[in-house]
Amino acid sequence: MTYQAPLKDIRFALNELAELPAVCSLPGYEDASVELVDAILDEGARFAEEVLAPINKQGDKGARLDGETVTAAPGFKNAWQQYVDAGWVGLRAPYEFGGQGLPALVAIAAEEMWCSANLAFSLAPLLTLGAIEALNHHASDELKALYLPKMASGEWTGTMNLTEPQAGSDLAQVRTRAVPQDDGSYRISGQKIFITWGEHDLAENIVHLVLARLPDAPAGVKGISLFVVPKFLPGADGTPGARNDLRCVSLEHKLGIHGSPTCVMSFGDQGGAAGYLVGEANKGLGYMFTMMNHARLGVGVEGMAVSERAYQQAVAYARERVQSRAVGSPDAAGVAIIKHPDVRRMLMTMKAQIEAQRALAFVAAAALDRAARHPHPQEKARNQALVNFLIPIVKGWNTEQANEITSLALQVHGGMGYIEETGVAQYYRDARITAIYEGTTGIQALDLIGRKTAAEEGATARALLAEVQATADKLATAGFASLSANLKSAAADAERCVAFILESFAAAPQRAAAGSVPFLKLMGILLGGWQLGRAALIARERMGEEDADVDFLHAKQVTARFFGEHLLPQVSGLAAAILHGADSVLELDDGQF
Amino acid sequence: MTYQAPLKDIRFALNELAELPAVCSLPGYEDASVELVDAILDEGARFAEEVLAPINKQGDKGARLDGETVTAAPGFKNAWQQYVDAGWVGLRAPYEFGGQGLPALVAIAAEEMWCSANLAFSLAPLLTLGAIEALNHHASDELKALYLPKMASGEWTGTMNLTEPQAGSDLAQVRTRAVPQDDGSYRISGQKIFITWGEHDLAENIVHLVLARLPDAPAGVKGISLFVVPKFLPGADGTPGARNDLRCVSLEHKLGIHGSPTCVMSFGDQGGAAGYLVGEANKGLGYMFTMMNHARLGVGVEGMAVSERAYQQAVAYARERVQSRAVGSPDAAGVAIIKHPDVRRMLMTMKAQIEAQRALAFVAAAALDRAARHPHPQEKARNQALVNFLIPIVKGWNTEQANEITSLALQVHGGMGYIEETGVAQYYRDARITAIYEGTTGIQALDLIGRKTAAEEGATARALLAEVQATADKLATAGFASLSANLKSAAADAERCVAFILESFAAAPQRAAAGSVPFLKLMGILLGGWQLGRAALIARERMGEEDADVDFLHAKQVTARFFGEHLLPQVSGLAAAILHGADSVLELDDGQF
Repeated sequence: MTYQAPLKDIRFALNELAELPAVCSLPGYEDASVELVDAILDEGARFAEEVLAPINKQGDKGARLDGETVTAAPGFKNAWQQYVDAGWVGLRAPYEFGGQGLPALVAIAAEEMWCSANLAFSLAPLLTLGAIEALNHHASDELKALYLPKMASGEWTGTMNLTEPQAGSDLAQVRTRAVPQDDGSYRISGQKIFITWGEHDLAENIVHLVLARLPDAPAGVKGISLFVVPKFLPGADGTPGARNDLRCVSLEHKLGIHGSPTCVMSFGDQGGAAGYLVGEANKGLGYMFTMMNHARLGVGVEGMAVSERAYQQAVAYARERVQSRAVGSPDAAGVAIIKHPDVRRMLMTMKAQIEAQRALAFVAAAALDRAARHPHPQEKARNQALVNFLIPIVKGWNTEQANEITSLALQVHGGMGYIEETGVAQYYRDARITAIYEGTTGIQALDLIGRKTAAEEGATARALLAEVQATADKLATAGFASLSANLKSAAADAERCVAFILESFAAAPQRAAAGSVPFLKLMGILLGGWQLGRAALIARERMGEEDADVDFLHAKQVTARFFGEHLLPQVSGLAAAILHGADSVLELDDGQF
Repeated sequence: MTYQAPLKDIRFALNELAELPAVCSLPGYEDASVELVDAILDEGARFAEEVLAPINKQGDKGARLDGETVTAAPGFKNAWQQYVDAGWVGLRAPYEFGGQGLPALVAIAAEEMWCSANLAFSLAPLLTLGAIEALNHHASDELKALYLPKMASGEWTGTMNLTEPQAGSDLAQVRTRAVPQDDGSYRISGQKIFITWGEHDLAENIVHLVLARLPDAPAGVKGISLFVVPKFLPGADGTPGARNDLRCVSLEHKLGIHGSPTCVMSFGDQGGAAGYLVGEANKGLGYMFTMMNHARLGVGVEGMAVSERAYQQAVAYARERVQSRAVGSPDAAGVAIIKHPDVRRMLMTMKAQIEAQRALAFVAAAALDRAARHPHPQEKARNQALVNFLIPIVKGWNTEQANEITSLALQVHGGMGYIEETGVAQYYRDARITAIYEGTTGIQALDLIGRKTAAEEGATARALLAEVQATADKLATAGFASLSANLKSAAADAERCVAFILESFAAAPQRAAAGSVPFLKLMGILLGGWQLGRAALIARERMGEEDADVDFLHAKQVTARFFGEHLLPQVSGLAAAILHGADSVLELDDGQF
């Protein structure tokens, strides 16, 4: 099954819902015209469809480790070279180091297509961009000059070395050591796990960003520093020189994303890998937070993107597979299963959530751009708060639902879905990591109720609820009675939950935390429904225009209604669990499970 | 992670909720004393824990096909021999052919343990028992005498050959041919797919039950006959003789249950496999329905059983993995993650659903026994209707939730859950088939709203709702106010949905079908909550008794409350989708997806 970039819906979400033209007019983005973006999307779609999608399945066979050498899955090295030649790595890399410096909103649309086409491949550039962002914000000019041009071009890739066996989500436990040397460099030693694209043969050098502790560092998160640790030490002219003292000691056998080598990295087996401090000592964890928003938004997009790919395959199969008579029909002849109501229900459940998730992710990306570039400090701050609030929701909700959506896609295939050759099981396996890495859903939800809700006394949450109300009012006027009513009812439930969290977070934080994931999902459904409500209003307006794409605009309105009738009603159940379910979560003794 | 049979909860569900003593007193089950069942459970637990569970992981490496020979995964052949020697196959096989003829209720409790310990292995005896049941009900005395003793002992295994490439759920499309021979046998030719344990080296013979068409058979489901087609043709004395003209031409590469060889079987490449008609010609599909209830109940138990295994591993990991400080604690020291509220929420979500599913499945099994053996025709009929109504719910709900529960177990492990060596990913993969085979959830749901609800004008549905109400009343009196209120509210929603289905099924069947899966899930949650409500009442009573297992009985009550606060509130959202969501499911043109 080939992938076809959903350009109509991407453009609709980009232009109409995330307001690309306004983003392009922000200071510093003047080069990003709507026409340029259009061309980028067309070209990106072609690349995703023709280069990345066809090697996704063979990528499932995985990378290979021989000695210390990792060979990427067949076709990946060639695809990477084409990706680099086309300049895709640089899309949102800084202009001064050879990138195009385009808005996050544009980059995220392209990234959706890479992730749909080939999630395992797309992790290489995504990690590289995260490393670029960290260095660009915090490294010295010398380090930037040495590393960023090579990374923005894609000649070198980047990695993040955070996790250690005893330190998963809890980076306070990091033990990797960094010992200062006379020349200003450091000797790094320790073991890191779960290092995505930690070793491979795609690029001539790999730039590891590594969290480690100085000998005199304070305990806990305030004693962690960030280092650049390149695979090959670059000479002053940027040519890779001596091999550094680091290596991949094994590859993980994972449930999915087999095309992406997940490495156990060992630093300093021969006395210490040469590393270079980024910014100031003991501030490494804060630096990680700099790029966290884009990284977590990116993973939310990954979840949605794999869902989109799985949805496309399910639709194609449902159109072609003939099985059983139509429900209620006297005609015994089999029909394509897309005619069966439950198959339609499954497809609509996928479609409605994917479109809501795309819209919400793009709106969050636009806020990221406004937070970075808006000339008015108040708007800048408002957008930063909006980004902060939306990111854990986009990350958590999109990825949790990716598990459900890819499962539905598999289900549409019946027994064929369980056979690996069919391909849809790969999406189910690949998607499963997205609710885990870059902070599990539980971590996102704690972030949401704490730093993003309680810490600002619910200001952004309530501002959003007011916007949802306003959209619901417009929907009522425009004739979307049920969607309007469902949105209002869900917003009222959400309001009660915000009040509960504000009240309990200080007084009984365990009770607030007990409902944190249901709250994250509730907000995802509510805000997704809000975006589809906005979309329905725009679609209805556009229907009357000349050259209106009537099929697309009609489907958009029906999809919004479906979301209102099938997804938004889930909010009341989540609210009940949040408001009344904390005690039963917390009551059992550990031994009673 | 080792498996520990949850004998306390199995016994509680068996004795208290499914009323084993009453089942044992039914005519024909006189030998099945509560003491005997106790001994069987202890011995079965030991076998599951010590023989089957330890080879589950190596089973994931899969069976091997060389030429036409399938070699089972390492350890499976030896385990099968032990299983046969211990007489486990015969537990519910007919007494007159060497089985023990025990109630379905007892068998299902043992089957839960086999499926938890090793789902792939357990499919071999489950399929064999299905074949025994079909033959016992419909075959001639000669065929029974020849095949059943060998099958009940486990010397020979059985299979079901239904599906063909063009005929998945729609058996009307079966094309395999059966040509009558002068000696009264038939020549069978055709290809069958998805044949579980279709070829292997565990047993000396394999007895295939095959659906095929006679040359003069009417089209559609009324022209399908059932045949016995053995791998080796048995002589009159039962010794396997000449090799029959059938072979395994390939093994499927599946997402999970790798230890169970799923075969493409080819019959008649050399002119026709010898087959023997079971019962009358053209009645094959009806014969399949005979064993469908037990088979579907069994798959519902499979889903719950894999969930139980995954839950146990998640609890063990959560107790041992130390990560991050306690929520709200000033102490920076990490705690076991079972202390974190969201981890507890996940564990409770698993535990509550598993216990509800076990109870509901056992109650259905008891009804199966009563329907078969109750001396009073009215009770017999009432129980048959109850079985018919409950089976699609147990099959559909348990297996859909197995996807969620095993996913939660994986999530509790964080990044480690995504690594295959951890083992929990195998449960996630294995569980995924259960919502597909033996009729997808969509098929179950159509059966539920049609034959099981509309066809009897909602009689059983409403009788069950009345029982739920009665339990809710008792709960209110006993001090379970929230659980009582949640049950009543859910039952009222269910009542509205039953009315909607009765109304729409005839007038607008597509609209009824659009809500069929939500209705199935709604009934699963409601009836699961009902069973836990019954359990809570019993547990509260028992708390005062001498030697009361206070931990277990306390946990049971908390678990019921959790179910009421977290699961039952989902019913209102499902009801909204059923009552108001049909149009948006059906509205799009096929091309608008």
